[in-house]
Amino acid sequence: MSLYVMKFGGSSVGDTERMKRVARRIVEKQDEGHQCVVVVSAMGDTTDDLIDQAKLLNPEPPAREMDMLMTTGEQISMALLSMAIHQLGRSCTSFTGWQAGFRTESVHGKARITDILPKRVIQALNNNQIVVVAGFQGMTDDGEITTFGRGGSDTTAVALAAAIKADVCEIYTDVDGIYSTDPRIVKCARKLEEISYDEMLELANLGAAVLHPRAVEYAKHHKVRLVVRSSFNYNEGTVVKEETSMEQGVVVSGIAYDKNVARISILGVADIPGVLADVFGALAKAGINVDIIVQSGVQNGEADFSFTVSLSESEHALKVIENLRDHVPYREVNSEHNLVKVSIVGAGMISHPGVAAQMFDVISKQGVSIKMVSTSEIKTSCVIEGGNLEQVVKALHTAYNLDTDAQVFVGGPQDRR
Amino acid sequence: MSLYVMKFGGSSVGDTERMKRVARRIVEKQDEGHQCVVVVSAMGDTTDDLIDQAKLLNPEPPAREMDMLMTTGEQISMALLSMAIHQLGRSCTSFTGWQAGFRTESVHGKARITDILPKRVIQALNNNQIVVVAGFQGMTDDGEITTFGRGGSDTTAVALAAAIKADVCEIYTDVDGIYSTDPRIVKCARKLEEISYDEMLELANLGAAVLHPRAVEYAKHHKVRLVVRSSFNYNEGTVVKEETSMEQGVVVSGIAYDKNVARISILGVADIPGVLADVFGALAKAGINVDIIVQSGVQNGEADFSFTVSLSESEHALKVIENLRDHVPYREVNSEHNLVKVSIVGAGMISHPGVAAQMFDVISKQGVSIKMVSTSEIKTSCVIEGGNLEQVVKALHTAYNLDTDAQVFVGGPQDRR
Repeated sequence: MSLYVMKFGGSSVGDTERMKRVARRIVEKQDEGHQCVVVVSAMGDTTDDLIDQAKLLNPEPPAREMDMLMTTGEQISMALLSMAIHQLGRSCTSFTGWQAGFRTESVHGKARITDILPKRVIQALNNNQIVVVAGFQGMTDDGEITTFGRGGSDTTAVALAAAIKADVCEIYTDVDGIYSTDPRIVKCARKLEEISYDEMLELANLGAAVLHPRAVEYAKHHKVRLVVRSSFNYNEGTVVKEETSMEQGVVVSGIAYDKNVARISILGVADIPGVLADVFGALAKAGINVDIIVQSGVQNGEADFSFTVSLSESEHALKVIENLRDHVPYREVNSEHNLVKVSIVGAGMISHPGVAAQMFDVISKQGVSIKMVSTSEIKTSCVIEGGNLEQVVKALHTAYNLDTDAQVFVGGPQDRR
Repeated sequence: MSLYVMKFGGSSVGDTERMKRVARRIVEKQDEGHQCVVVVSAMGDTTDDLIDQAKLLNPEPPAREMDMLMTTGEQISMALLSMAIHQLGRSCTSFTGWQAGFRTESVHGKARITDILPKRVIQALNNNQIVVVAGFQGMTDDGEITTFGRGGSDTTAVALAAAIKADVCEIYTDVDGIYSTDPRIVKCARKLEEISYDEMLELANLGAAVLHPRAVEYAKHHKVRLVVRSSFNYNEGTVVKEETSMEQGVVVSGIAYDKNVARISILGVADIPGVLADVFGALAKAGINVDIIVQSGVQNGEADFSFTVSLSESEHALKVIENLRDHVPYREVNSEHNLVKVSIVGAGMISHPGVAAQMFDVISKQGVSIKMVSTSEIKTSCVIEGGNLEQVVKALHTAYNLDTDAQVFVGGPQDRR
């Protein structure tokens, strides 16, 4: 007998028919002799519908009241799924985030978990109940309802799995697992049997939407064995764990891309100590996330540097820099928007020198110029023109021996919460 | 400065436009220098939509999970209304039932309030906040979410008004107040300026849907000054309070009717001691509410008796009696379904003998036969054929001097939760 945490995203419980299928899936797991704790997201479009209603009443609704509103989405899912499980003749108890013992810091919209006191969950398991928990939500010590932000239900599942010492945390979604790259671009993308936490973390951070980076971080920290698999079929998924048995010749595990990239360059900045700190301090203060930073050498007491931000934040970033002009003298600022970041990720890169060089070579052989580069121990990212994305991803996929013979067909949009 | 509890029913907050109007109404009250605690029901059809979804998954959903589901309706209303109030530039905090301190017994679907600990409500008021509370819900000492059943939000409002010692509890609905009878039947029905708790209790129990009997009972017990008024205009409503200044010649305050009536008669029952207790004990055990009971005299050691139940429970009641046959011998059972109960209510009946006799006289002059009668200190009810309802109510309304010259126009269905 194993203890499973099973997380189902919004599209897996998108309507009552899907809800019934999920209920059967859970009951099958129990029939195999296992204990089941289920974490569930809001049904399909519920979250968007609630946001739309809120915006009609207040274009900038207070974060506290948004949390009050949004948490009802998961509470509805949780109660309905519990009813569907009862209908199959099983005992089942649902819990809101606060009932399941999720305590958080006092921040609305993106609270971090401070503690989990899963007493009621464990009691219910001991009474042979299936337990259904609302994802994405918790409570502060003052009894305020909070939410975890994007990917919050994944985090609920992983954190709960750690707290109740579950054997496995299964993330059910609408794809079969983690792929070597986006199967919508590369038809012969390969489903990975397993991947390490670190690789998954890089992939998640680099734009692979299947798992939220925060949930992966939590899993890594608490050594929770994660399985990503489809709620629509019984295919084996991808195991995310500490160490993976390195396949022969596989240096790169996956290729990720991010279309949400803009480059900003500041030219002719006076090379005064502290200038970089001033610029990036101001951007941080404005809540803008900076990704890659590249500084060229100093000439005639002036330096040029470039950095990337997400497309949606680029206008804001330009304004921040405009406002700095009196304080930080520079000659010129320019920006570029039609860019993408392509990244190769693989734990094997640590022991295989020259992987980055090979990447540059593959890209240049496609006649594509590399605008910026960023590296870490297990990933290399290149910023290129957006129009070259598909061609470059395909070429890299082939170059790193990731192609399979099989073609992958992907359904709807992936669960994101 | 007065402390107001203002309760808005589901039709008053049926869509975002209505929600905005309610928000303005609350802000106006604050502008007059008052403190406001608002109790809100689920928006329009939300409750029915949730029930429909539940039934698709489980025709008999567990009561606990239904409470989990249903309470989201009020939580959505509460958060949205709070956002609308913020949009008008006011500080506002919303609370779920459990956050507002409603403690209940451990019964799902119709829990009674055991205690109210409104610490957070009072704190928020002291910080000059408008407070919005989700109606209809509370929590057990074990942290289980419960609901109060039909009329639950009225009960929330009245109970909270008592707990925080509010000066007035205003029930906003889609009619202008309490009427002498249903204005949909009698166009010249009169809006009452005031009515006593006892009269209101009888009217509510007898089918007037504007206020739930339980809320009236609570108001009477805690002497909460209630005002029933429209959320769609600024007309004065009806004040419900302990003593009313009796108007000259007004003996009967209101006429109520109930279309949900079935009569069951058991004929030729052996007159053994305990027979009545056996029959009505069995019905009570089956959860069937019996209203009027009439027993005829005993002849030849056999008795006949009749009683009324609600139409929807009559089939079930007949089955219960069928099953009793071995235990309680009787000759025949029959039933009648096309019936209504018409009632006159008035505190003045105590000091004016002959009011009931006058009622029988009015009805018989309409050529309508009375099938059953029931009386209390301040009401008399007659069961008649359903087809005669309108004619009889109009005749009684005129006979007791309740007609006004004005015609009343009534909008949509009344708030029922």
